[in-house]
Amino acid sequence: MEVIEDILKLLKTKQTYVLTTHIHADGDAIGSLLALGLALLNSGKNAVMIHSEPVPESYRFLPGAEQVRLVQDLKEEKFEVGIALDCTSLSRSGDAEQVLQKADCIINIDHHISNEFFGHINMVETEAAATGEMVCNLLVKGGFTVTPDIATNLYTAIITDTGSFRHQNTTANCFRTSAYLLECGADHSCIQHHLYEQRSLESLRFLVNVLQTLSLNENGMIAWMTISKDLIKEEDNSEGLIDYAKSLKGVEVAILFKELDSGEIKVSFRSKSFVDVNQLAAHFGGGGHERAAGCSIKGNLKEVEQLVIRKAEEYLAKRRAAE
Amino acid sequence: MEVIEDILKLLKTKQTYVLTTHIHADGDAIGSLLALGLALLNSGKNAVMIHSEPVPESYRFLPGAEQVRLVQDLKEEKFEVGIALDCTSLSRSGDAEQVLQKADCIINIDHHISNEFFGHINMVETEAAATGEMVCNLLVKGGFTVTPDIATNLYTAIITDTGSFRHQNTTANCFRTSAYLLECGADHSCIQHHLYEQRSLESLRFLVNVLQTLSLNENGMIAWMTISKDLIKEEDNSEGLIDYAKSLKGVEVAILFKELDSGEIKVSFRSKSFVDVNQLAAHFGGGGHERAAGCSIKGNLKEVEQLVIRKAEEYLAKRRAAE
Repeated sequence: MEVIEDILKLLKTKQTYVLTTHIHADGDAIGSLLALGLALLNSGKNAVMIHSEPVPESYRFLPGAEQVRLVQDLKEEKFEVGIALDCTSLSRSGDAEQVLQKADCIINIDHHISNEFFGHINMVETEAAATGEMVCNLLVKGGFTVTPDIATNLYTAIITDTGSFRHQNTTANCFRTSAYLLECGADHSCIQHHLYEQRSLESLRFLVNVLQTLSLNENGMIAWMTISKDLIKEEDNSEGLIDYAKSLKGVEVAILFKELDSGEIKVSFRSKSFVDVNQLAAHFGGGGHERAAGCSIKGNLKEVEQLVIRKAEEYLAKRRAAE
Repeated sequence: MEVIEDILKLLKTKQTYVLTTHIHADGDAIGSLLALGLALLNSGKNAVMIHSEPVPESYRFLPGAEQVRLVQDLKEEKFEVGIALDCTSLSRSGDAEQVLQKADCIINIDHHISNEFFGHINMVETEAAATGEMVCNLLVKGGFTVTPDIATNLYTAIITDTGSFRHQNTTANCFRTSAYLLECGADHSCIQHHLYEQRSLESLRFLVNVLQTLSLNENGMIAWMTISKDLIKEEDNSEGLIDYAKSLKGVEVAILFKELDSGEIKVSFRSKSFVDVNQLAAHFGGGGHERAAGCSIKGNLKEVEQLVIRKAEEYLAKRRAAE
């Protein structure tokens, strides 16, 4: 409670704010950024929302998205308060890090277990399903009006981070917050339309191509899929793909390998019920949550695949031996 | 409110109950049946849950499912109260209709707009997303304990009828009820696991094969997929497949053609926002709703495809001309 009060005290007294979120932004990142940004703007503050990359096309329908500025377009502006939303570390905000670091005070609002407490004030709630849930609580406690636009952003944040209320992180509080946001005017059908009915033909073809790479290990408990550089040329949205591997009966760990232009392989992990993939990702210098984590590994695609699958098998064997 | 009180008065005074739901049962049907049945049993009533068919395999994980009896296994028992859950008409309960009709009093609990008010007491709430939502309200008002088992059934009912909170029927009340059910001990991960993580490798391969048949008409407003007899041999669960076609940007009408062994082609239609596919299906002797309908057509797969797509294009052109 004290942390919230510290933040609210600051929000009442300071006038200039810069807000940002993590690179490769998802719905929780953009939704939380826009919700808090709009709330500050609505209450007469000088608030600038920045991002290291353009807002992903799939989230440009969100109210206020057009107000997010690219870091590179920013002049030599100074801000009293810098706010990082949904960022485990300052560097996760990409180029925005430099701007934030020049602020007098940094507020860190995040729900990831691997958060590095990099702010002067750290509101880190690992039991929250989405940073959007925390922002909603903050706004309500602070007496900010949750307008329909703000509600649409926060509702999108919760929907995307809970996989439409399917993931393990779904709690009674997610539901109560969503009920409240619908009553505040969150536009359910607009959100559903933009999140789930705006798929490009290319992305559907991409899905088919990626599904065709699906493999299972010998005991059927690890399933993985691979996106090679060639595939990415056609399309680059791999969000949700890993869930197809996870949906298989008997699978405990699902892994998605993505070959980046940089020569790195981005590895995403999901687990169903007992393997802590945060640990698995940490072994390769990454992190995340118990059931969803990721890392990046330099190397050749095939070699990285083998390395990671071998390590996953070790973890699985260890966990099963311990039971 | 009066209807609920009438029902509660009956539930307090009567001792013997028979409960049933509709044929081709879904999660709301089975979940509502089990929840109310278990609540009555827990309060010392003589309650028998019956169904015209075995409980579908995908819902046998629900607590109490093993207590549902087949109508044909029922002896010449008489009940004071018969309760139909999620049934638009008495005949929708299949063979169970005869058993219900012998009860002194029939209670009809349903949320479908086409409900025929066939009961002595009719609790019909068309704004409810699921019958399970109504049963929850009834139990709370009646002071019944919502045990974890009952909560799991009701939560499943809401999840399945709202498409995991994606459909248009999702309301603040769905969310509030779900929050309450989680707090009562609904087993979120068990439900998710059984509903969404029990996919067979064959069904995923089937998905890939069907997606590869995806075609679009010239203006991109009609998308269709085709399941030939050869494909069905591998796997026969086409549930939800049509939504992939519907999810495409710009598509208004999605169509799924399925070649049956009988020489007939089963045609399913979905529309996004303005084409009444019920009319389209009716043209071929079928029917359904405005946004989801179907029909069966005798003939050669390719010919039926062309015929139906031409007709769909006509409807689209007509609707657009009328605007």
